[in-house]
Amino acid sequence: MSRFFSEKYKELEPYTPGEQPKNTVYIKLNTNESPFPPSPRSVEYAKDALRSLHLYPDPTCSALNEKLAATLGVSPDEILVTNGSDDILNFAFMAFCDDKNPAVFADITYGFYKVFATANRIPYVEKKLRDDFSIDLSEYKNVGKTVFIANPNAPTGIAVSRSELEKVIASNPNNIVVIDEAYVDFGAESCVPLIHKYDNLLVTQTFSKSRSMAGARLGFGVGNRELIRDLNTLKYSTNPYNINRATMAAGIGVLEDAEYTETNCKTIIENREFLACELKKLCFCMTDSMTNFVFAKHPDISGGDVYRKLRERGILVRHFDKKEICDYNRITIGTREQMVSLVENLKSILEETK
Amino acid sequence: MSRFFSEKYKELEPYTPGEQPKNTVYIKLNTNESPFPPSPRSVEYAKDALRSLHLYPDPTCSALNEKLAATLGVSPDEILVTNGSDDILNFAFMAFCDDKNPAVFADITYGFYKVFATANRIPYVEKKLRDDFSIDLSEYKNVGKTVFIANPNAPTGIAVSRSELEKVIASNPNNIVVIDEAYVDFGAESCVPLIHKYDNLLVTQTFSKSRSMAGARLGFGVGNRELIRDLNTLKYSTNPYNINRATMAAGIGVLEDAEYTETNCKTIIENREFLACELKKLCFCMTDSMTNFVFAKHPDISGGDVYRKLRERGILVRHFDKKEICDYNRITIGTREQMVSLVENLKSILEETK
Repeated sequence: MSRFFSEKYKELEPYTPGEQPKNTVYIKLNTNESPFPPSPRSVEYAKDALRSLHLYPDPTCSALNEKLAATLGVSPDEILVTNGSDDILNFAFMAFCDDKNPAVFADITYGFYKVFATANRIPYVEKKLRDDFSIDLSEYKNVGKTVFIANPNAPTGIAVSRSELEKVIASNPNNIVVIDEAYVDFGAESCVPLIHKYDNLLVTQTFSKSRSMAGARLGFGVGNRELIRDLNTLKYSTNPYNINRATMAAGIGVLEDAEYTETNCKTIIENREFLACELKKLCFCMTDSMTNFVFAKHPDISGGDVYRKLRERGILVRHFDKKEICDYNRITIGTREQMVSLVENLKSILEETK
Repeated sequence: MSRFFSEKYKELEPYTPGEQPKNTVYIKLNTNESPFPPSPRSVEYAKDALRSLHLYPDPTCSALNEKLAATLGVSPDEILVTNGSDDILNFAFMAFCDDKNPAVFADITYGFYKVFATANRIPYVEKKLRDDFSIDLSEYKNVGKTVFIANPNAPTGIAVSRSELEKVIASNPNNIVVIDEAYVDFGAESCVPLIHKYDNLLVTQTFSKSRSMAGARLGFGVGNRELIRDLNTLKYSTNPYNINRATMAAGIGVLEDAEYTETNCKTIIENREFLACELKKLCFCMTDSMTNFVFAKHPDISGGDVYRKLRERGILVRHFDKKEICDYNRITIGTREQMVSLVENLKSILEETK
């Protein structure tokens, strides 16, 4: 830390992203990317956009906004597209939390919530998950705080129903409830249809997972137009142009290629069921994942050892040191070939440790 | 404003970007973009990168960082590449300003400084420019505040020498001095060579102007490695992946195409001299611009009228309502054809108003 760094950040511990190896010798199952290339139309549109790279992008992202609004069945002014969903989540912490409105989220969830809160000097409360890693939603009812719930949750993969979430939203009419739906397309129910019923609901999603665009940086928030206006105020006070031309064009392309995304999601769900079935045969325990990853532990070998031994064999998965989940690994669902290779390697690791 | 928006932002007035017309019927001289398309190599590299758009970008931007470091003659850990230079400027306000370290900048300069300060709830002082719009650097010596100086300044276009800035940097050893060099490639002296001499210097630049990449969103800060580490802490606490794959690749491409950029800068300087000469013939007064724009007023017609009449004729320039500069327009230097057309239109506007 330099002697000039403001004291307000002395306690700040940044987020640690999953490892991004520079070479491609690894089977990369550690950051929940899609194993499928970007949609042909998204690439085609992005290529066209590169010709105008000398001109600023449209800061209102109006063409993308309109396409997305039509896809979701909302109005364009009920959406803010952002640089990945981290961007909209950070804005939500900034806009809707302060000393009077602390944040509340699960103790085991997307690790960035705590960092956003700390970076914005916002008090926060972490609610323990149940022993089976499910969220006890009763803890969020009438909570009088700004609520952040990832649905499905990460890294557990567990989803709750829209009707259960609706009770949380309805019980907190004077606080914002943010539902982070990064993984919603792999089997959970979206809360987007509730935004016209509740003015305190913000739903966030991303193009990074189901839409094969992690490398493009595109996310968005959906909520009533007054919330979106507040979030826009923050966008225009920090970095108004932060979605570049190629990304904006690619976003329109992938929305037009809806069938491509749908087919990929179906394949990922099939591969998840295949992997879960194979892992059970090997005596792994897993949560009931509704995402593009599984969260698995084995009775005979520690989570850290599984991680390290897979890594030695060229397979990257994500291991967290946090005490409550250090027995587990979060394993991204890849292609069928990658899943078969993973299972073979796990078999051989288990043989070794016998 | 929604009833949920945090009180801390009640006074926040976002930045107003220059108009970005959706169609291309305008000759667009209002946001200081390059009139030249992106470099062929930047487009080629970006196209290649689109194939991997389903994978997260490298959050350390190491390949681009190394290329940029080699270009600037500094070490890779003395650079942070960011999503445009707005991103690095916002981080600088966050990192190096607080109640004990207020910001200081000119009253007429890049309008975003005031917004960054307000958004981060940082006290700031504005120092008046002299009547000729030059910066009185003596006002920034031993100032005991975090200094932000755009060199050349915008929208005035006026540059100061590196040796004059060095005195400001040397006189404030306990405060950060940020030199914002967005327009430095059009004739001013860069302070980058001073970063090894002063640990309190941060230089920011952008790929948006001389490098024809406004649509890609790429900027950077250069300073000693401890400052860069602090700024990285903020990056990893807000949006670590915010530079996408295509932009990173394009950035490497344009740095390899150095001759292309150099030739374009020369042409822009020539066109600026041509335009200045023609405008003088029409009795316009101008500052001595070292940028890719001129800042011009006419004794017989108001700045607002010039703006509106040009707009009616399909030419967009930038007009600011601020009292001290409302007689002026900031006019981006375009191609020679665009400059000729601008001059013709101004001639005819002046005829009309006689």
